[in-house]
Order: sequence, then C-alpha cells, then structure tokens
Amino acid sequence: GAGLPVFHSADGQFSFKPRGRILSDVGTTFGSDHDARNITTTGMRSLRLGFEGGVGTHLFYQLEAELGQSKVQIMAASLGWRDNISAKTSFDVQAGNLFNDRSFDGSTGSDSTPFMERSVVADAIAPERGYFGMGAMGRLYFPAGHLAVTVTGDTVDADHTQSDSRTAMARLHLNPLRSDRGLLHVAAWGFDEALNGASRTITPSTFVDTRFNGALRVQSGALTGATGTTGYGFELGGYQGPVWFMAEGGERRARLDGGRPDFRTRAYSISAGWFVTGELPPYNPRVGSFGRPHVHAPVFDGGPGAIELTTRYEQVSFRNLPDPADGWSETLGANWYLNSFTRIQLNAVYWSVTDALPAYAGTDKGETLAARFGVTF
Amino acid sequence: GAGLPVFHSADGQFSFKPRGRILSDVGTTFGSDHDARNITTTGMRSLRLGFEGGVGTHLFYQLEAELGQSKVQIMAASLGWRDNISAKTSFDVQAGNLFNDRSFDGSTGSDSTPFMERSVVADAIAPERGYFGMGAMGRLYFPAGHLAVTVTGDTVDADHTQSDSRTAMARLHLNPLRSDRGLLHVAAWGFDEALNGASRTITPSTFVDTRFNGALRVQSGALTGATGTTGYGFELGGYQGPVWFMAEGGERRARLDGGRPDFRTRAYSISAGWFVTGELPPYNPRVGSFGRPHVHAPVFDGGPGAIELTTRYEQVSFRNLPDPADGWSETLGANWYLNSFTRIQLNAVYWSVTDALPAYAGTDKGETLAARFGVTF
Amino acid sequence: GAGLPVFHSADGQFSFKPRGRILSDVGTTFGSDHDARNITTTGMRSLRLGFEGGVGTHLFYQLEAELGQSKVQIMAASLGWRDNISAKTSFDVQAGNLFNDRSFDGSTGSDSTPFMERSVVADAIAPERGYFGMGAMGRLYFPAGHLAVTVTGDTVDADHTQSDSRTAMARLHLNPLRSDRGLLHVAAWGFDEALNGASRTITPSTFVDTRFNGALRVQSGALTGATGTTGYGFELGGYQGPVWFMAEGGERRARLDGGRPDFRTRAYSISAGWFVTGELPPYNPRVGSFGRPHVHAPVFDGGPGAIELTTRYEQVSFRNLPDPADGWSETLGANWYLNSFTRIQLNAVYWSVTDALPAYAGTDKGETLAARFGVTF
Repeated sequence: GAGLPVFHSADGQFSFKPRGRILSDVGTTFGSDHDARNITTTGMRSLRLGFEGGVGTHLFYQLEAELGQSKVQIMAASLGWRDNISAKTSFDVQAGNLFNDRSFDGSTGSDSTPFMERSVVADAIAPERGYFGMGAMGRLYFPAGHLAVTVTGDTVDADHTQSDSRTAMARLHLNPLRSDRGLLHVAAWGFDEALNGASRTITPSTFVDTRFNGALRVQSGALTGATGTTGYGFELGGYQGPVWFMAEGGERRARLDGGRPDFRTRAYSISAGWFVTGELPPYNPRVGSFGRPHVHAPVFDGGPGAIELTTRYEQVSFRNLPDPADGWSETLGANWYLNSFTRIQLNAVYWSVTDALPAYAGTDKGETLAARFGVTF
Repeated sequence: GAGLPVFHSADGQFSFKPRGRILSDVGTTFGSDHDARNITTTGMRSLRLGFEGGVGTHLFYQLEAELGQSKVQIMAASLGWRDNISAKTSFDVQAGNLFNDRSFDGSTGSDSTPFMERSVVADAIAPERGYFGMGAMGRLYFPAGHLAVTVTGDTVDADHTQSDSRTAMARLHLNPLRSDRGLLHVAAWGFDEALNGASRTITPSTFVDTRFNGALRVQSGALTGATGTTGYGFELGGYQGPVWFMAEGGERRARLDGGRPDFRTRAYSISAGWFVTGELPPYNPRVGSFGRPHVHAPVFDGGPGAIELTTRYEQVSFRNLPDPADGWSETLGANWYLNSFTRIQLNAVYWSVTDALPAYAGTDKGETLAARFGVTF
Repeated sequence: GAGLPVFHSADGQFSFKPRGRILSDVGTTFGSDHDARNITTTGMRSLRLGFEGGVGTHLFYQLEAELGQSKVQIMAASLGWRDNISAKTSFDVQAGNLFNDRSFDGSTGSDSTPFMERSVVADAIAPERGYFGMGAMGRLYFPAGHLAVTVTGDTVDADHTQSDSRTAMARLHLNPLRSDRGLLHVAAWGFDEALNGASRTITPSTFVDTRFNGALRVQSGALTGATGTTGYGFELGGYQGPVWFMAEGGERRARLDGGRPDFRTRAYSISAGWFVTGELPPYNPRVGSFGRPHVHAPVFDGGPGAIELTTRYEQVSFRNLPDPADGWSETLGANWYLNSFTRIQLNAVYWSVTDALPAYAGTDKGETLAARFGVTF
C-alpha cells in the first residue's frame, strides 16, 4: 500500500516493504425464518502481516500471512522475475504460493473489493483448492490488456503423503476502448483441476454477502468421488468518469465417478458504483482488477474523503446433486474512503436462500446489515 | 516500546513502528503433597510481534500477534481516532480487538506487570471472553484521571455460527492527590456480560503465580448453563518517591439457569514495591496503570540498571458451586531493569490451594521459584 | 541476511533487523514398487519471519517464527549477552528457545545447507525434542575453534502439566590447519536426554532427501517406555580453494524400560562440493558451519552468479526394535546462487529404504528429483 515506507539496503540493490491490513467487521441478520440465522457477530475479515520487495530490478518477492480467522494461513508467498520484452510489452514469472488470476472480483484484493464480500462468481466458480495454490504463473502485459497462465498443485499448507491436485488456469483481459476518463473491460478465464486424495470429497458452500454469519450459506451436503473440476467465466465492465459497472458470470462442472452426472454450479453478478465525490474508479488496467482509489481531498488533510455508492445483484445455483441449493442477494452499499488506504464500508443485503438440506430446507429470506473499518499498508 | 525507531512515509503523514516482546520463563515447584505439582518447566510467557502507527494526527492503529503458547492469538488489533476537546481534555475511540481497561494489574501490559503473573483480581474477576474482545471503546482523558467505556462481542478468533456474547465494561480512575514525586490512585470498574452458546459452559480456573505449572491451579469443575456474568472491583494505590503500594479487590457473579444460586468469585491482592536505585515507579497517569520505568543508569551505559523489590499477598475463592476452591499466595520478588525495556524478574511464591476436585482434594501448600528474562521493543 | 537494512534507534543504542526466508519446493518420485510413493508434491520448506538486534554492544536478541508447514512454530527466540575475554577469545550466553549446536549439517541453517535436506546424521542422531529447546547455552570462541554447552528443557510449544524433558549437549570444533584459501575442520559433539511423560513414546523416522514425499521415510513403529537418549558424533572436513569435503557420523542409543536392549540408531554421511565459478565455500570458522557464499559476479550485476556442484552418500539404520529399518541415498546436486542470498537448488536422489513395517515391508528403491527456489533476508 501507499502508506508504508520502502526500505533499501545500503547498496540500493535490495528493497523491503512491510505490508499489512486490518479489516474489522460487525454484522447482524434479521428476518430469517430460522432463529439460528438471526444473529449478530463480530469478526476480523483480515489481519494480514507480510512484506514485499525486490533484489535489483528483475527479482521480486512477497510473503503474507493471514491471522484473521482462528489460524495462520499463508497467502501470497512467492519469488518472481520480471523484464521488458519491448517498449510496450513486459512479462513476469513467479513461483511459490500464488493468488489466482481468475474473475474480476476474485482477482481484486480483499482490501479493495467494492463490497464487503466478493461476488458468488469469484467464490463459487473456483478450484477446490481455493484462491491460492503452490506453483508457477507467467503473465504477459501489453498495452490493451494482459494474459496470465498458471499451473499449481495444492495450497502451501496441504498434506504431503499423496500427490497434489493439479490446476491449470488462464485469464485474458482486454481494454478495447480507453480514454482519459473512461474504459471498457472484457475478459475471459477458465481453469481445469484434477483432484486427488482427500480433495475428492467436495462440500459445495458459498455465502451471500457476509462470511461472519456461519449459519447463512448456500450449501449442499458433501459429495464424494469427485475426480476433477472445470470452470470458466466472462467479465464485461468499465467506467466513465466516476461511475463504473461490472457484470460477471461463470459455470463450474465437477466430474464425479461412477457415471454420475457432473455437479454443476452457475453464478452471475451485476454490480455498479458511483464516486459521489468525483474520483475515478480505482481500475488497474495492468492486471484488470480494482485497487485503491486516489482520494481528491483526504480527511487527514481536512477534506471530506471519497464517498462511493454501490449496488449488486448476484445469483448462484448448485445443481445435479442430492441436495441442490440456490441463493440470490441484492446489496446496497456505501464506501467512505478517509484516504486512499483507510475505508469504512456499509452493506445492506436482502438475501434469499433455497436449500435441500434438512436443517434449513425450503426457501428462506432475510436481511443482513454489516459494517467494516479497514486500513491497508 | 522506546527501543525501536518509528518510520514515516515520505509525506510525513503515515507512521509505522514495529513492536515486539520476548518473555522467557523457567520455574520450579516443590513442597506440594502431589508429585504431579512438583515439576520444573520452561515456557515463553510472551513472544509477540506486531506494529502500531498513525495516519495524520488523529487516526491510529495497532496489530499484535502472540506466538508464545502453542498457537497464534491475535491480541490488540484496532483502528482508532483521537482528538482534543479542550486544552486539558481529550478523547479517543477505537474499534477492533481491544484489550480490557479493567483492574490495575489487568490494564497493565504483560511486559510491565511488577510480578511475573498478574494478580488473581485481574485474572479471575474477568469476563469469560478473557482480556480481549471485538468491539468499540471510547476513552475520555482529563487532568485528574480517565474514563473508559467498552462494548464488545467475542474475541477475534471465536465461532461465527451463533451470536457473540456481549460485554459492557467501564473503568474510572482518578488521581485526587498528585505532586512531582508522589500520587494517589483510586479507581472503580465493572462489567456485565451476556453469555451465548458454547460460552455458557464455564470452567473456573486461575493460577497463583506461575502459569507454567499446568498442574497448579485454583480450579473447579465445568459449570453448564451460565447465562451471564457481572463483576466489579476497586483499586487504591499510589507512590511516594521510589515506593509504591496497590490494593485491588473485586467480586464476580455468574448467573446460572435452573434457579441455581450465582457462582461467586471473590479476589483481592495487596502489593508493594521499592525501587532501591531511586527511580520513580512507572505509573502512567493518563491510563492509570504501570508502564516501563525510566532507568537512571542503564547497564548499557555502564551503570547498575534499576533494582526493584516487590511483595504481594493475594487471595481468591470460588463459591456456590459443586466443587468450591480457594487459593492464596505470598510472593517476594526482585526486578532488575538493565534499561527501560530489558528486565530480569525473580519471584518466590509460597502458595496454598484448597480444592474440592478429586484429583487434588483438600489443602495443598508449596513453593514456586520462577525467573524471567524479558525484552520489549 | 545481508539483504536487509539494519535499523537503529535515535540514540544508536538499539538495533533491529527484520529477517525472513522463503524456500519454495517442488519434487517428484518415481521407480518405487509402491504407487503411494511415486507422487509429485509442492511445499514450502520454510517461510520464516522474524527479527534480530541488539541493545548496546553486549545484549542481543532474536525471534523467528516458521510458517511453512501447516502451523506456526517458534524457532530461535532468545536473549543473550556477549563479551570479550581477551583480544582473541570471546563468549556469549543465551537464554530462550535455542537452535542446537550439534553436527555440521545440523548446525547449518536451512537456507544454507548444501543439499535440499540435511543429512541423516543431523536428522536422526538428535534429541527427541528436535532441533530446538528452551534453556540456556554458553559458547566460547577462540582462534582455533569454539565450544558450545547447552542445557534445555522441551521446546517452546510443549505441554506445561509435567516436568520438561532435560537435554545436556556440547560441541567442540577445531580448525587445526588454516590458510587464506583452505582449512581443516574437526569436531565432536554429544548429548544426553532424560525423557519425561509423553516424550517417552518415540517414533523413529527420518527422510532420505525429500521431506515433501510424506510416504517416503525410513521409519519404525512407535516405541513406548523410552527413558532417555544418548547420542554423539564426529565431523571431519575442510576446503581447499573452491572444493570442500565433509564426513559426519554418529550413533544414538535410546534407553528403554523393562530391561529391553537400547534402541540404536547409526548414521553417517559423506559429501563434497565444488564452486565451479571459483568462490570459496561459505565456511564460517567462528561457529564451524556453513553460511552463505560471497558471490563474485551476482546475476543482478550482470554476472553469472555462483554455481556449485555437490554430491552426497548417506546411510542410516534403526536397530534393536521390533520393526528395524535402513536407508541409504546418493544425491547429485547443483546450486545456482543468483547472489549471496538468492539460490536455486536441484537435487537428484537415488534412494533405497528397507522397512519392517507391513505397509512398506522389504527393500524399495527409487529416484527423487527435487528443486527449490529460495531467498533469505
């Protein structure tokens, strides 16, 4: 983040920058038919500590540990090499524990997503191994977009008594139109995953807008005998002045043994935002995702900060399995950026979940109000 | 701590300071009637890593992780805002995982307590959720003292499938007399906690002076069906020149369902210290607790450092439950401060524990010798 | 490491240096008779974060946490004091969680070992408590070598309801011959350990060159009733110009109750390396182990970096127990040092394991190829 200083070694060749984020949440749910869902909870969405840096101009590294949810998880932990190919194109290759380049929301950091939680597309059209995997990634950057290709095994914390699962993944984003104050974004991505060992039991589950209500999930029972998953998605969005728009959709098929039909997940989301205070949306054209905004008049300089109003509709369905499930939600939100790396978020979600599992069978509707105070370094 | 440099961003608006502490213990117990208590153990009282800083003059943040006892626990993790009300009064508000402002010993950091362990008042007259909770705290500072009001849910690492427990807490400290070399401290505090879900089973337990003898506890069997706790306490202390004195006492009542009488805990402690080398006690009049002393002649400058002799008597009782328990201890201690943030501590404890649990039924007495080497950044 | 800057407090008395390492592995095994061993896995050999520093010229401290293998483990966490005895001799004493000074490979940091894994001598002729223990260590440094004496209890994360196990350990290394470009190294070491409580059940296991194949171990069934272990070893090695050689061997006896014969482990390893690019081996004559090399022409300055070719033969046997086991391996390796703290390692291992356990009974042979990309700060 912009907040922290970068340290250099005496010879200038080595750089080192601490990184961190504190995202502190509170949320309450009401209106559900099930008392167990009408709860109020606090939680740390992210407590992250780490560092990044480089050696010379080509080698770069990063290491981040997430402390926020009851245990330590390694997030990005990688070493990479970057270079220019020509005046306008460049590349990098990385090895280590890598963050997926997959979907618009899924490629945006947890401290930069316009809503408190990523969309169901990012969350449900994903490999079983989740947002991170150990392996190698190559990315090519050109004036109109970028292409990322990744091959990974399991995450860093996984079992070593059997072969890793294998995931191949790619994403291509293009900006066919681009002006000083506006831009069109189109992208496509996909992945294919061969499952191994314990990963062959999958438990479909996603949340419709707040992770800190553990009783409120779109979920199915455990599925054994999954041999692999294949997923893909499309993105269409852009911004003109302070207003942005993003539509994402995707499908995932999990192959099951014994001649059973594929378990199928479909998800889409449509979202939009408006910086009332006039800032441009924090779109990063290099990697095709959101970053942090440049705030015109930060609160710390006596200004009002930046204010963004947001809305999202999203839908997800789990099909072709004994316990199908559906969910959709409509979110209204407001983001108040005190400066470029300090933010207060409010989300009001109207959600509907239809479940085949006995505990919450049938359709249930309700509202969730949630707030977050976050700082990123 | 004073030891580490503070880093600033290029524009001076962002500050960042690493924090840490290493508190390394060894202890031995003898004289108990139970062989299982006559043991010798080593342990890390605290291995803490974190950072603190600010953005502009008003926003401040901190994040600390404790690595010392078999797992990672998030300690303070918060964002806050501070401002002046007038020339002499100021306030701050914080949100996140917050350290209790409760009891004198309980409000003092683990690297600054005059004895190796906090008193039974701090440890037993406490909410079930412990020393930390997720929520919000407001504090008002005025020339004669300060007032803190806190509302929290569970700790950061807690379960999210049910509503958090709720704790409201307040503490008021006053310094009615104050001179250049002396001061009187009076304070009162209380809390009320509504318990929820798994928190409704409580297991009363506290230690009489060394946490690293796991077999030596004042403890009762598990109590189910607790619906809430209420506690309060009073503090009276002060210092004149290098000699300080502190008395604390409190009571906690845990409400039980089924018409059972409240489970009642009472505790008090009386302690005193003398800086043989003439330093003033490290009392912080802003928040009414101990910090680190200003050592006149640090060892690293060729001086003797600061030497403090301490003594404490403390007593705790668990009543109105199937397995009542009592304990008291008398501690003699010495603290050698090499400089303001490096300290060697020795504690000799004579303890007596009366237990109704079968394993250690009856009254048992013995001695514990313990030593700590600590550095704080 | 050399890479990171050292921070000093304003008065110059306090220093602070972040430390870290990222060692990222991938490996594949083939040729085994057991399909479960022919697997391909990724893993983080080390993800380490910490800091070290000093107060004044005598006091030093360090704290390191290892995040790489599914949980947080405290590694070195200690406070120490160092001073000169005369112009040529000096000493230090440390308290806290201490890294063994034991065997050549075992005393070398995981980021500096010439092979991807330490030898079976370092790994199998070791106390049950492993590479670290809480306690105190004194070291004496003189022109011809050093002597280290350590007394420790359990590791920092261990149980506190019973007395720690106790380990006494010593190592003496000498450099009887020494010139500008060459040196002879001889050393002897030993330890004696009294086991307590849960530590009395021991499960002999070591790996022959890749930890990230969890199915490939030299191992025996669990042994109960071990009361203590005694081990010793010898080292003979040295270098002349860019070529080094090291032979290590040792034996450990675990005493068993009930009049059973000692469980006996024997291990030896012979290894050699050649810096093709002419660097001297990174032998540290102060502590008698390897560090990081001084690379003549780092890649980041446009040079080729340093290239080292290595080879090792090692053998280990577990004897006098119901399920004896043996293993040996021959490794060919190459290390490419981009600069002094960035390294790519390749190891090709031909291994043979003879097991009495039912799952892998009999002799099995195969090959493992493994690679590592590592950076140390």
